[in-house]
Amino acid sequence: MQSNIKLNMSRRIRRTPFTGKVESCGVSDFTVVNHMLLPKGFKNTVEEDYWHLSKHVQIWDVSCQRQVQITGPDALKLVQLMTPRSLNNMETGKCFYIPIIDENAGMINDPVLLKLDDDMFWISIADSDILLWAKGLALGSNFDVQIKEPDVYPLAVQGPKSEELMCRVFGDEIKKTKFFNFRIFDFKGTKQIVARSGYSKENGFEIYFKGFENYFDSVELGEQLWETIWNAGEDLNISPGCPNLIDRIEGGLLSYGNDFTKENNPLECNLDKYCNTNEDHNFIGKKALRKIQSEGIIQKMRGVIFDGSPCTATGKPLPILSEKKEKIGQIASGIYSPRISKNIGLSMVLKDHWEIGKNIIVDTLDGKFRKGIITTLPFPK
Amino acid sequence: MQSNIKLNMSRRIRRTPFTGKVESCGVSDFTVVNHMLLPKGFKNTVEEDYWHLSKHVQIWDVSCQRQVQITGPDALKLVQLMTPRSLNNMETGKCFYIPIIDENAGMINDPVLLKLDDDMFWISIADSDILLWAKGLALGSNFDVQIKEPDVYPLAVQGPKSEELMCRVFGDEIKKTKFFNFRIFDFKGTKQIVARSGYSKENGFEIYFKGFENYFDSVELGEQLWETIWNAGEDLNISPGCPNLIDRIEGGLLSYGNDFTKENNPLECNLDKYCNTNEDHNFIGKKALRKIQSEGIIQKMRGVIFDGSPCTATGKPLPILSEKKEKIGQIASGIYSPRISKNIGLSMVLKDHWEIGKNIIVDTLDGKFRKGIITTLPFPK
Repeated sequence: MQSNIKLNMSRRIRRTPFTGKVESCGVSDFTVVNHMLLPKGFKNTVEEDYWHLSKHVQIWDVSCQRQVQITGPDALKLVQLMTPRSLNNMETGKCFYIPIIDENAGMINDPVLLKLDDDMFWISIADSDILLWAKGLALGSNFDVQIKEPDVYPLAVQGPKSEELMCRVFGDEIKKTKFFNFRIFDFKGTKQIVARSGYSKENGFEIYFKGFENYFDSVELGEQLWETIWNAGEDLNISPGCPNLIDRIEGGLLSYGNDFTKENNPLECNLDKYCNTNEDHNFIGKKALRKIQSEGIIQKMRGVIFDGSPCTATGKPLPILSEKKEKIGQIASGIYSPRISKNIGLSMVLKDHWEIGKNIIVDTLDGKFRKGIITTLPFPK
Repeated sequence: MQSNIKLNMSRRIRRTPFTGKVESCGVSDFTVVNHMLLPKGFKNTVEEDYWHLSKHVQIWDVSCQRQVQITGPDALKLVQLMTPRSLNNMETGKCFYIPIIDENAGMINDPVLLKLDDDMFWISIADSDILLWAKGLALGSNFDVQIKEPDVYPLAVQGPKSEELMCRVFGDEIKKTKFFNFRIFDFKGTKQIVARSGYSKENGFEIYFKGFENYFDSVELGEQLWETIWNAGEDLNISPGCPNLIDRIEGGLLSYGNDFTKENNPLECNLDKYCNTNEDHNFIGKKALRKIQSEGIIQKMRGVIFDGSPCTATGKPLPILSEKKEKIGQIASGIYSPRISKNIGLSMVLKDHWEIGKNIIVDTLDGKFRKGIITTLPFPK
């Protein structure tokens, strides 16, 4: 269900230091995340990009993962207030995936938190203005913190050859960086944070490219970084890329706003292990989350595999029905998996139907109903 | 500088109850505002739409103007905390344009506030998550309020024939609705708020279409509303439309994220009359705003008229230079005005250069420099 509708460009939909490079590479589609351009397609099909990502290395402009920088004496207190995940044992240099919830335990973001120092954090956000949430909480609570969006533009290097490529650019020290840890590396005299992480199920890294207050200087250094990586990766078959729908669904990587919204709680999103309600720390939504824990949830995120010709669900979710034709879920992210040779999708599924192996029916909104089955996340290998 | 880049569709970029109708009308471009689709072009050129808007009537899907609904005993206290504009004399049934600023007096939105009752407000927002800002402030401050995004999807009817059309649909009572006031009208047994307002310099109305929690029911009633207006407007030469770049620049209507951002204060945006810092009420950013008032601002929003062939500034702002070639501003919103027969634009201009009538130079990023002049807002008739 790809459309031919154009994106109307404006300054409000912000360019990144890498947008010029992305355009040179022949970007065909963008989406908008955090008021910023995110490339969503180049010359290849999603399937061609999927195979490439699984074998080689790609460079992704994910600058839209904006950082909310929180510093000051109350920084830890504020960040902890924002998530049910306990930060007690978080060390500097670590990345934590954290649910952020509101007073009703509704998900308002699912960012990666970076601890830069005891009194300094970056929250690398999905698509909602957590800057305003954090500042509102801090002002209302009279916390002693400074909060801002720094001039940081993440650039991802993803795929099995990413370690080889990153070593060429930053040196063999890259290998010492463990999954969801970051270290600081030099690039042309600037200090850059590099984490082993990324929004794919392949090995990969994210460079939290730190630019300058003067955006034109950021573009200049950003383009140098892009070119350096690109040139070092030519014989590794590097290509421009972006989060790949097939790869991320197979990997069970959820997308905020697509697969879950503020109407969903973290337990529905399978984030039970990050809901540390029995620890001492206080956080927004604790009471609501405890209530949900004790009463149980009514739906849960599952994988769905379904038959028929290749079928993409993006703009309009595809209803999922029980064998008795009751609506039991909807697929917001769905696509044909060439590896599984079936269509796959992500959906919240009602309690009586979420059992693995259960038969279901997918309404593909073209007058057809396809047979399907509930499966685990990530999808079986 | 229109691109041919496609918008990648996903559930995260939300459809509205009117999106199906908009697609039937041949929408060619969308942008994204508040995580929702905003149509930005149909079959006609921007210039054709401009002339049509100035002579006839158009129907616009502006559902992306999401509402932040604040109710409860502390509702007024919270809304007043969010804006420097005094709400002391605001009556039920009024719409107030309000700057919303942060602790540094930086603009974080410029919505229209609707007072539905003494303890009930809607904030009809530009492109930032004021829902999170309001909830963060309320939670931190322990205010007794409920805050949510209701199922409301504004639909605008704009142009000189809009009053005639609205009377046909809702009755002659429409005429009693004054500018920036709203009244409640019946549509098929539902109560709908209709304001005389809109993001154009023509006469116009905004229907704050209230749907249902079940989105499919909203679509059904929304499509009926669209059809009713459309059918009643056929002999008035109704057409589908959207905020028109020529019209809004001529009218001096600013766009948050384009013409100003959180780096700008309300005085720079010519909103002095809404900065009531001498009144008793407390609001976020009061201290910072008073300091700026006493020290004076260093730049201010102005109109710019410039020579040469038709030139559109949207994606990349066009630098403005003094006659000595110093950078003194940038045009984020610019286009050729067929009425003025020159290019026009909006820009913050540095203090020593903001005098009306001053000569300036516009760098159109195509290797050319055009002569121009500083002018008032709205543009001279």
